[in-house]
Amino acid sequence: MTLPVSGMASLAWPHPDLKDALARLRGRSPLVHCITNAVVTNFTANVLLAVGAAPAMVVTVEEVEEFVRIADALLVNVGTITVPDAEAMLKAAETAGLTGTPWVLDPVAAGVLAYRTSVVAKLVRLRPTVIRGNASEILALNGLNGGGRGVDSTVASADALPAAIELARSSGAVVALSGKVDYVTDGQRTLSIEGGDELMGRVTGMGCTLGALIAAFLPVSVSPLMAAATASALFGAVGTDAAGRAGGPGSFAVEFLDRLSTIGL
Amino acid sequence: MTLPVSGMASLAWPHPDLKDALARLRGRSPLVHCITNAVVTNFTANVLLAVGAAPAMVVTVEEVEEFVRIADALLVNVGTITVPDAEAMLKAAETAGLTGTPWVLDPVAAGVLAYRTSVVAKLVRLRPTVIRGNASEILALNGLNGGGRGVDSTVASADALPAAIELARSSGAVVALSGKVDYVTDGQRTLSIEGGDELMGRVTGMGCTLGALIAAFLPVSVSPLMAAATASALFGAVGTDAAGRAGGPGSFAVEFLDRLSTIGL
Amino acid sequence: MTLPVSGMASLAWPHPDLKDALARLRGRSPLVHCITNAVVTNFTANVLLAVGAAPAMVVTVEEVEEFVRIADALLVNVGTITVPDAEAMLKAAETAGLTGTPWVLDPVAAGVLAYRTSVVAKLVRLRPTVIRGNASEILALNGLNGGGRGVDSTVASADALPAAIELARSSGAVVALSGKVDYVTDGQRTLSIEGGDELMGRVTGMGCTLGALIAAFLPVSVSPLMAAATASALFGAVGTDAAGRAGGPGSFAVEFLDRLSTIGL
Repeated sequence: MTLPVSGMASLAWPHPDLKDALARLRGRSPLVHCITNAVVTNFTANVLLAVGAAPAMVVTVEEVEEFVRIADALLVNVGTITVPDAEAMLKAAETAGLTGTPWVLDPVAAGVLAYRTSVVAKLVRLRPTVIRGNASEILALNGLNGGGRGVDSTVASADALPAAIELARSSGAVVALSGKVDYVTDGQRTLSIEGGDELMGRVTGMGCTLGALIAAFLPVSVSPLMAAATASALFGAVGTDAAGRAGGPGSFAVEFLDRLSTIGL
Repeated sequence: MTLPVSGMASLAWPHPDLKDALARLRGRSPLVHCITNAVVTNFTANVLLAVGAAPAMVVTVEEVEEFVRIADALLVNVGTITVPDAEAMLKAAETAGLTGTPWVLDPVAAGVLAYRTSVVAKLVRLRPTVIRGNASEILALNGLNGGGRGVDSTVASADALPAAIELARSSGAVVALSGKVDYVTDGQRTLSIEGGDELMGRVTGMGCTLGALIAAFLPVSVSPLMAAATASALFGAVGTDAAGRAGGPGSFAVEFLDRLSTIGL
Repeated sequence: MTLPVSGMASLAWPHPDLKDALARLRGRSPLVHCITNAVVTNFTANVLLAVGAAPAMVVTVEEVEEFVRIADALLVNVGTITVPDAEAMLKAAETAGLTGTPWVLDPVAAGVLAYRTSVVAKLVRLRPTVIRGNASEILALNGLNGGGRGVDSTVASADALPAAIELARSSGAVVALSGKVDYVTDGQRTLSIEGGDELMGRVTGMGCTLGALIAAFLPVSVSPLMAAATASALFGAVGTDAAGRAGGPGSFAVEFLDRLSTIGL
């Protein structure tokens, strides 16, 4: 795919680059070290297994340094952070910097709560490969007040796009901005990704799980920007497909895993 | 609905008051701060999303005071309590007292284990708006020995009704007593709620999730008694409906979420 | 069933001994105290409820001694171990030794990470009734280097069978070795169990859940060897059946719970 140097292209399944990246993921089965929140651990692991990756949740400060050295990618999600979690996250992120392990930061509810916001600020300085968040979180991280209300975004994703681009430039991370339309940007190039369904907002942790999927694509993608774009586009396509088969949020989650395991095969 | 000043009325879907309360819940989407047990976090969040509420699990003592001030209601469930959890729960409950935020206490296995029983006693003194438990737990809280066996109730709910009424009077909380028949009482008025299905006992955390649903109804109900009654009646109706479509406990949980998201629409 | 004193018999559903053990389990509904990992708590509880057991997750060092004394069996799984978890696990295992409560050790990723490996070594010295692991974990526990990669086994289970037998002899535990073929051994007698489906590797924590199921069968089986064999054979049969009805890993997990609740009825 030819990306414009600046400006915005859009990406959607079944673009051949996406199918190639998915085939590489399934071939390599990257080991994704997840330090994520208590609400979504099970679903995150199941999404990673469904797509063909190998999840592992190793969460204690005594073990994370050793495990980051084995893992192909790392996810840090602060959704239900505690003080011991923060220690483990910071140690894991530091280690990823030393080993060159690509990692995703998901700053759930940053800007809403002071403690986690301070931890997230430290994590951003440890140079995540990708930051994934909703509009409120990205605005907060960019030093603005997003008026966030818990974990929901109260701002449309397009409104936060300038902040996302600015944050990408200042942090060095690719920023994946989730919303009705997803955007991914490295500060120079920006892609928009459509897809998904309203039902995705009725299942807990879909955004968190997208962060995990981006982590899984990092080791098999040509760039962090393409990893974030690929995961987002795949997520949207599977979400649209699953919603068409579902009778509500319960069956949606089941269909999502089923479709994710077979898409493109 | 006209409630008798004393004595027992019964309530069942689709009573118009229930439909109105559900419509108000969906319109307002109350933010429910959950400090709940590790087994049910995911299902609890999904039930709250399915009904139309906004769940958020914020669990560390550094953050709960700040978050209770934002939330519309609070749930405290001691199912897998640890010492740091207890600190966070007590701080959250104290804050709810200051801010007037309505909150639900779910005293899982109180009376069975000394440590949590002592924490629950402190929580009761912080004046929960609603206490939800099974017969053993309510008996234990009322200073009796329920002969509890883990998290299961070994006593029929009707046998614990006098204790529930007494507990409501002494604590100032509405007591929601779960069992084959559910009862809710504020010490003066008592309502019985039928519905539900045997399959609900084969899915973990249905009772815990009912506690969360009561919390979600508190900000949109005319009284804590009606919030507890509405949540219980809705739970029973959705449970009966889902059981009729399910082939076992796995599909029951899926159907429960699907039906909860569409009931009354 | 007549088991040879040495050599290898195989076991599969619907052997009458399996059906009898399942009927005893459903009749007694053993209370299984689980100290397990954060990824699988919900699914583990649902599997135990589906088969007819009574799960309870009690995880803090302040409570485990008291609860082991009530429980019929104990599961200790180190998948997401932290320092407070380790304290609780060691206290629970010590108590089980004093009370004669049968217990299962699931040494997830032992041999891969130093901290948990040291805790697992202490747990093995507390004489678990059954050790359940994959080939890498069993090799690691037997003092060999399994070359484990996270929680996946990279060695075929048959290759680890000599190590399993040796470990059973040195530790006094029955060893349940999971893989494409499962083996259970008490060091003298070894049984092989076929069944299951590739989809079981696409759902997180199936192995962890098998550990819980073994714990549930311990109080109702003629020997720890038969408990491990029965749980493994039942797991394989339900897995094969569920896979035939499933469209992917999402529906597989749902079908697994449904079938487990009705098999043999």
